[in-house]
Amino acid sequence: MEPVRRPGGRSARVRTAVHEAVLDLLGMEDWDSLSIAQVAERSGVHQATLYRRWGTLGALIDDVVTERLSQGSPVPDTGTLRGDLEAYAVQVAADVAGPLGPLYVRAAQVGTRVHDDDQLYMMDRAVQLQGMLERAAARGESPPTLLELMEVVIAPLYYHAIFFNRPVGADHARTLVDRLLSLPQ
Amino acid sequence: MEPVRRPGGRSARVRTAVHEAVLDLLGMEDWDSLSIAQVAERSGVHQATLYRRWGTLGALIDDVVTERLSQGSPVPDTGTLRGDLEAYAVQVAADVAGPLGPLYVRAAQVGTRVHDDDQLYMMDRAVQLQGMLERAAARGESPPTLLELMEVVIAPLYYHAIFFNRPVGADHARTLVDRLLSLPQ
Repeated sequence: MEPVRRPGGRSARVRTAVHEAVLDLLGMEDWDSLSIAQVAERSGVHQATLYRRWGTLGALIDDVVTERLSQGSPVPDTGTLRGDLEAYAVQVAADVAGPLGPLYVRAAQVGTRVHDDDQLYMMDRAVQLQGMLERAAARGESPPTLLELMEVVIAPLYYHAIFFNRPVGADHARTLVDRLLSLPQ
Repeated sequence: MEPVRRPGGRSARVRTAVHEAVLDLLGMEDWDSLSIAQVAERSGVHQATLYRRWGTLGALIDDVVTERLSQGSPVPDTGTLRGDLEAYAVQVAADVAGPLGPLYVRAAQVGTRVHDDDQLYMMDRAVQLQGMLERAAARGESPPTLLELMEVVIAPLYYHAIFFNRPVGADHARTLVDRLLSLPQ
């Protein structure tokens, strides 16, 4: 049986401290060189506790990723299709450029093992984006499909960050939205 | 001093056997569960030899990736821009869909450490693709830029494979080429 954990209790504080340590370390280290020992030292939580609670470094990182994804920014609702798309594109560009960028890539690769939580997040996000496009259609605008949005705007943002380690800025994100909106209907 | 190694000698045979074992195992296992012990068992090469030669599993995988990348298919030269682009897109779609697909993603992530060999490969590939586009211009066609090719065609192919673990087929690859060729000049 799971022990009862009071929210905000010791268990939650440990989790917060450990997550913060992982995120701090990721700002300084490559994934490959991160270790449980470093997380223990930085968080002040015993290695034995980390192993007991998370089992492996991989499982701990998954937990951090899932937590961050669940706190993701809401899908924009600015009143216009272009406004929504630009706000969303700029936000994704900032996300992948930030210190947490590698988390998303890691989550994606972890995704080959199909984590229920990550899958749910991806589906949930797709549903929200679909809603954003449907609001535009309801206003009489002609939105692209969700597939077009992902391929024309989101994929290049990740591609630049992943393959060239050189994420793009807000201006380029807006250029991608221009391209999306100029697709033949 | 590096010991002299005869090409095709014992050292080369060991490398071939070990690389084949890694590739076989990747067809069956997740990256996360792959181990030096498994590679030793499958290749028939002692663990001690693997550790002495490659140091870590990560370094071994890097070696496999670099080797495969250097054997990559040549950039197409079919005589027409559309022909070249379609052949290239279909080839990339097949590459990321194949059992080696995860290698490319791994190479990309490894790229954050900037391997000289991987960097050289990427630059070399970019030069070849640029040459393909310049041949089209020389024939009087109006090619896209290399950036447009990467963003509109290559990025979505990787995106589908990486983020949804669902690579696209040749037909969809050709649809992306249609989109690229319909961009406003």
